[in-house]
Amino acid sequence: VSTNPVKIGIAGLGNVGEEVARQILNGFRIKDEIYPLELIGVSYKSQSKKRKLDLSGIKFYEDAVSIAKDQEIDLVIELIGGETGIAKELCETSLRNHKGLITANKALVANSGHVLADMAEKNNLFFAFEASVAGGIPILKIVRESLAANKINRMAGILNGTANYILSEMENTKGDFNIILKDAQDKGFAEQDPSFDIDGIDAAHKISILSAIAFGKLPSLGSMEIKGIRNIRSNDMDYCEELGFKIRLLGVASETKNKQLNCSVQPWLVPNNNTLASVMGPMNAIEINSNLTGPVLITGAGAGSGPTASAVLSDVIDFAAGRKSLSFSRSAANIIVSKKATSFEKPTRYYIRLSVVDQSGVLAELTAIFRDYNISIESFIQKGISDDKSAQLVILTHSTDHDKIKNASLSINELKIVLAEPICLPIYE
Amino acid sequence: VSTNPVKIGIAGLGNVGEEVARQILNGFRIKDEIYPLELIGVSYKSQSKKRKLDLSGIKFYEDAVSIAKDQEIDLVIELIGGETGIAKELCETSLRNHKGLITANKALVANSGHVLADMAEKNNLFFAFEASVAGGIPILKIVRESLAANKINRMAGILNGTANYILSEMENTKGDFNIILKDAQDKGFAEQDPSFDIDGIDAAHKISILSAIAFGKLPSLGSMEIKGIRNIRSNDMDYCEELGFKIRLLGVASETKNKQLNCSVQPWLVPNNNTLASVMGPMNAIEINSNLTGPVLITGAGAGSGPTASAVLSDVIDFAAGRKSLSFSRSAANIIVSKKATSFEKPTRYYIRLSVVDQSGVLAELTAIFRDYNISIESFIQKGISDDKSAQLVILTHSTDHDKIKNASLSINELKIVLAEPICLPIYE
Repeated sequence: VSTNPVKIGIAGLGNVGEEVARQILNGFRIKDEIYPLELIGVSYKSQSKKRKLDLSGIKFYEDAVSIAKDQEIDLVIELIGGETGIAKELCETSLRNHKGLITANKALVANSGHVLADMAEKNNLFFAFEASVAGGIPILKIVRESLAANKINRMAGILNGTANYILSEMENTKGDFNIILKDAQDKGFAEQDPSFDIDGIDAAHKISILSAIAFGKLPSLGSMEIKGIRNIRSNDMDYCEELGFKIRLLGVASETKNKQLNCSVQPWLVPNNNTLASVMGPMNAIEINSNLTGPVLITGAGAGSGPTASAVLSDVIDFAAGRKSLSFSRSAANIIVSKKATSFEKPTRYYIRLSVVDQSGVLAELTAIFRDYNISIESFIQKGISDDKSAQLVILTHSTDHDKIKNASLSINELKIVLAEPICLPIYE
Repeated sequence: VSTNPVKIGIAGLGNVGEEVARQILNGFRIKDEIYPLELIGVSYKSQSKKRKLDLSGIKFYEDAVSIAKDQEIDLVIELIGGETGIAKELCETSLRNHKGLITANKALVANSGHVLADMAEKNNLFFAFEASVAGGIPILKIVRESLAANKINRMAGILNGTANYILSEMENTKGDFNIILKDAQDKGFAEQDPSFDIDGIDAAHKISILSAIAFGKLPSLGSMEIKGIRNIRSNDMDYCEELGFKIRLLGVASETKNKQLNCSVQPWLVPNNNTLASVMGPMNAIEINSNLTGPVLITGAGAGSGPTASAVLSDVIDFAAGRKSLSFSRSAANIIVSKKATSFEKPTRYYIRLSVVDQSGVLAELTAIFRDYNISIESFIQKGISDDKSAQLVILTHSTDHDKIKNASLSINELKIVLAEPICLPIYE
């Protein structure tokens, strides 16, 4: 336990940065008695932003990268964001100048975390990024340290609060995707450009970081199947409710026996009795299945200034306490940047929804395709006829290889009787 | 990262000890490459037990305490159990001889953890006990390190798997408490003397340890209200189901603004939409509410050799990696052994079930008592008449001080029309 204060520089004073600065300045729980911390300097862009924070006596750096060059600083906290540019330059410069480094930047860690970790290890420096995944849920430390003795079998998580908020609102209000997205944007729950959240990119960054910590394999986004929630319709919510499921956007990562990585982001049908189905609104949740411990499920706020600042500060306290672990729980040099991740560990059941013309012979055409692809059907339900004479068909399959469903779906989409791209969602079990 | 193996002695080779020894001997995940561990010696009582473990070349100590005296040993793992006796002597001797110390012994930690931690701190020794609370759920590290920057507002947990198994079975089968307890004993889910589990003692040890880590206050068992589940009847399950609740045995700890500790173990009515209600069977779960992070809920196996061994090994790896934290997240000298813990932070609603004789005037007598104690009633429902002419009454109160309910319950119990001690359960919200 050191009595020299840790001298800290923060780059980026958005909501999270401001909360981190406030906690360091004001002190928190009893930790500041034990591990003294001193905020030396900050860098931020918006000079006009009103801050509830007295920064007098704190250095201001016009250029964020100069924090990393300040002799006085021990520890740099990067809260600028972005996978390249100034954030990356700051992180690299910090490690080159032998500073400890903490970041909340998932895009940067998912793309370059192994390179930064390698730089840190070669010089015995601290590098941590708890805040980059699932905000207030301390998942990285749990996988890295608490479950260190376990072989991780599978991780599955609701990793994007915006997407989960939209899905839960669609369930609750039976409203249309676009209306609820618009409403979420108006309320500040979704960005004006919501693509990162609703197309699965943000969740993909997070499951890719988790995969590197759990399996030593860091899949690039291009190597993974990433599907968002844009094509989910309110009638999918109705049908799933009848069938006893909730639709959840899950990042799932597992490793097969021959060390092949499965890693994907897509909407799944989660049975109501699975706790992941009960996670509502902007909350995150992660289920980790490991050999000794069995399933552990953690639910908490995945974003927001308080939870994210708490995660950053837990890294700060680890640094101050002199606690170190390998950032990805193994030598960064051993991390494999995965070129190709498959999406499924094993066959799953599927939910398929089709819009078809309401005429005789439709079932014969469809069932012929399922027969040709050797897909076995559990149930086949016709849901009412719309004004436009289209009929909605809901099909549940028995466990089926992903590729068969993919190919069958392409064939089905080519049929004239099919009016829109089929919706095919795997069932989580 | 050290290359000298950590030399380990294990005292107690029950199911957990055997699993810990097996993992150390066989190696686990990639950790043994990074943090080499060596099992030097073991001590156990049962010479006749068949073990799936090759202990050749491993020292055997007839007397467990001699592990602590072996010059070769760096780290002692105490898995004997019991709050005094040989376990305590081993732990004290280990620290006196400057060994690192890990224990899974909740009774010992709840009673003497602060004394052991103080001994450890004075000599800068490692002392950890992750396995003592909630088995595979890494709750101590989460509160101590991951949430270190947070003021903890409240912790509430299902901390005893046996009690939760019995309650869930009563829900599922509508069976009687005694029959289900007998069945659990036959299946090995409950001890032959089940008192520790079903009377709340085991959960009390755990919430008391959590309270020390979160609030710096270690309540002795005598200072807490501890109630078990013996008086819950199958008709309570029926009524709660109708009302939208599940009965859960919760350890709850919080701190009032004037630093008064609330800490208790008792059965609560948990609303179905609260995730704690969905925790079934022998699982444990803990909800932590803190100022920055908000609510975090963790569910996992609370017992069993695998989960408990995983928790022990996470402490072993912390030791091997040189990661240290204060065992109770503050100087042990600052821990207050709490003489009196209140049970409630604030008034709660109550569920009251009464067995009364079926005659006119009963309601008048009862409502007079509620009026006298100034307890406001939300609903008052008479449930059918039994063959013995007794009627079951279910009363829900508005938010009420605990003391009022307690005193009213005493007065009600004295009425001639009341046939059995009233059941009064607080409602968790």
